[in-house]
Amino acid sequence: MTDIFAKYAGLAADIENLRRAAPRNPFGVVIERPLSATVGLIEGRETLLFGTNNYLGLSQSSVAAEAAIAAIRSEGVGTTGSRIANGTYALHKTLEHRLAETFRKRHCLVFSTGYQANLGTISALAGKDDILLLDADSHASIYDGSRLSQAQVIRFRHNDPEDLDRRLGRLKDHQGAKLIVVEGIYSMTGNVAPMKEFVEVKKAHGAWLLADEAHSFGVLGASGLGVAEAQGCETEVDFIVGTFSKSLGTVGGYCVSDHDGIELIRLCSRPYMFTASLPPEIIAATLGSLTEMQARPELREKLMANARQLHDGLKGLGLSVSTHVSPVVAVTLDNVEQAIAMWNRLLESGLYVNLSLPPATPTQNPLLRCSVMAAHETDQIAQAVGIFERVAGEYGLGR
Amino acid sequence: MTDIFAKYAGLAADIENLRRAAPRNPFGVVIERPLSATVGLIEGRETLLFGTNNYLGLSQSSVAAEAAIAAIRSEGVGTTGSRIANGTYALHKTLEHRLAETFRKRHCLVFSTGYQANLGTISALAGKDDILLLDADSHASIYDGSRLSQAQVIRFRHNDPEDLDRRLGRLKDHQGAKLIVVEGIYSMTGNVAPMKEFVEVKKAHGAWLLADEAHSFGVLGASGLGVAEAQGCETEVDFIVGTFSKSLGTVGGYCVSDHDGIELIRLCSRPYMFTASLPPEIIAATLGSLTEMQARPELREKLMANARQLHDGLKGLGLSVSTHVSPVVAVTLDNVEQAIAMWNRLLESGLYVNLSLPPATPTQNPLLRCSVMAAHETDQIAQAVGIFERVAGEYGLGR
Repeated sequence: MTDIFAKYAGLAADIENLRRAAPRNPFGVVIERPLSATVGLIEGRETLLFGTNNYLGLSQSSVAAEAAIAAIRSEGVGTTGSRIANGTYALHKTLEHRLAETFRKRHCLVFSTGYQANLGTISALAGKDDILLLDADSHASIYDGSRLSQAQVIRFRHNDPEDLDRRLGRLKDHQGAKLIVVEGIYSMTGNVAPMKEFVEVKKAHGAWLLADEAHSFGVLGASGLGVAEAQGCETEVDFIVGTFSKSLGTVGGYCVSDHDGIELIRLCSRPYMFTASLPPEIIAATLGSLTEMQARPELREKLMANARQLHDGLKGLGLSVSTHVSPVVAVTLDNVEQAIAMWNRLLESGLYVNLSLPPATPTQNPLLRCSVMAAHETDQIAQAVGIFERVAGEYGLGR
Repeated sequence: MTDIFAKYAGLAADIENLRRAAPRNPFGVVIERPLSATVGLIEGRETLLFGTNNYLGLSQSSVAAEAAIAAIRSEGVGTTGSRIANGTYALHKTLEHRLAETFRKRHCLVFSTGYQANLGTISALAGKDDILLLDADSHASIYDGSRLSQAQVIRFRHNDPEDLDRRLGRLKDHQGAKLIVVEGIYSMTGNVAPMKEFVEVKKAHGAWLLADEAHSFGVLGASGLGVAEAQGCETEVDFIVGTFSKSLGTVGGYCVSDHDGIELIRLCSRPYMFTASLPPEIIAATLGSLTEMQARPELREKLMANARQLHDGLKGLGLSVSTHVSPVVAVTLDNVEQAIAMWNRLLESGLYVNLSLPPATPTQNPLLRCSVMAAHETDQIAQAVGIFERVAGEYGLGR
């Protein structure tokens, strides 16, 4: 009997090395209980959370919570069915209408996870005769959706409209559709896409553009719609994909578009059709969070002020941080052993951030990925920077 | 600019024909509100629900509801993070332990949807040098997981261990691992897998066996573990995949196994790693439902009695129904137009069932897929059979 796990001998050895090198597995952290949006109980200790995607702090919104509770009491805890069978409740339609209205687009489809939103949209939009042009730093859900699509996949250099332009130039005789896929804010680095330039390239080549605003919705733009809105080109992006599990604090995903054809996806996208729909309480909580996000633009202001404080604070320590100021502030380190050790020391000091190791990182460098929330107090950010200063000092980093 | 939707001209025409042929889209039903597990408000009318996967009626369980509400109050409405980052709460570990214990297996991984459980398990288990042997009637999530895996895919005849045996015989010189994938109860037809025979074939060829018990967990077996338990071979199935969105009434999925290697999947399965984890309230509700399922074995007895009543009732009308008695009772019809018309008449008469059209059906025939719940009253089933009798009569079917 061939060992089905033999192919993972390398991975198993890596995990074993990780175990030997450090007291805990950085990918096996358990939050025993969140005490608030910004503090969680980890290993019995109150720990500052600087490694979530809860940008507006809405996972702890009482408006969202009460909406969810009301939905549970009136509609139960799940639908047990697909959107195309018994899994579309009035609530799902309401959320789709609200999101379409929010984005000023004609159509919205809600998916059961953000991962499935990319999977289901990309795999259905791009067929075997089409070409997908992906930013090289695209999220796994974009790569997986592309693989399911059977379209030809071409990667272009991260955030590089000129490279995209060159590659599209070489494809001018290709008969199929060309779909460009980019993200608004990149989740690991905080890099912001030059969306307006991508729109120009798309128009010049008669291509289509899909923007994944997972990490930028609720964060950038006059009404919080994301990078496209912030750069004044949201009407020219063909498909905007997003998620509920970042700024809206719940789970699920969506695609909005002005193209009527997107409605066809409901009857051909397998990740949309062959999965149970989101439970009523999740839909209700998401509607509640959306209302909060729209009623309280000051959350976005606070978020960006916090982003600036963390960014400047870490930069001031002499650490190598992201170029753009966004709620994601990544610290680039030189080697993996140091990154693992520092991550452990930060956690022991009461600070949780995300560790990202190559090959999951864009370059060959490991990252300590920090993120802020609107809910963070100025003091908490100062405290986080202080912990970084001490730990960086232990490893001879910074000034 | 090439029309990206041109490839769906056929689908668009089919939808247009559907629209012209019948007053409503069978794949666009909206349940305005569930009034109970068995009755929903559709088009303003109280409608009997005979087309859900809510086999034990637990989507309306007060135990699950109260557990969800308590979790919302103490932990919020979402985690905003992946299981390998900030998305593992103590609740997630508790549910994994409970499920492992329930199945008497050493390991359990919880995924954010049932679709992603198949996608994530299959794509990670089977590599490019391996061979996947799939029952021809496999669910879309199994096919999609197989495509993501890059393994060679071989289909064998539905529920046919002899055909599988022949195909494995031809592969005896192949060096990679061979992973057989079958389901317990097939969702569209109610067919039950000959699991014990599949286990024999697997052993004879040194292959691995994955069973998707999505529609059989909570339904069959002395403790409700599914078809493998019912046939006394659950210890010999290598990987059991399941979902929370059927008998447990919530959303999500899992894989249980005695093989230690399955833990590696947490660090290589993209549909596990690159998606937000399930919100606390979903995990808590699922734990509540699991407790209910285990504390009330009478739910399974009632479910099977109801299955028998519906099966015999529809068979007694002279309709062509599933061979096996299971909570899924499919009525096979001869042509698509008739199926659409009958489905519409059933709904107008206050009965919701699922319509399934080829090529989504196993044969070239359309199906009216009915399902029962433990929550159905004897009278409701008699009423459903009565509606079927009247509508079948209008179309000259049955006796």
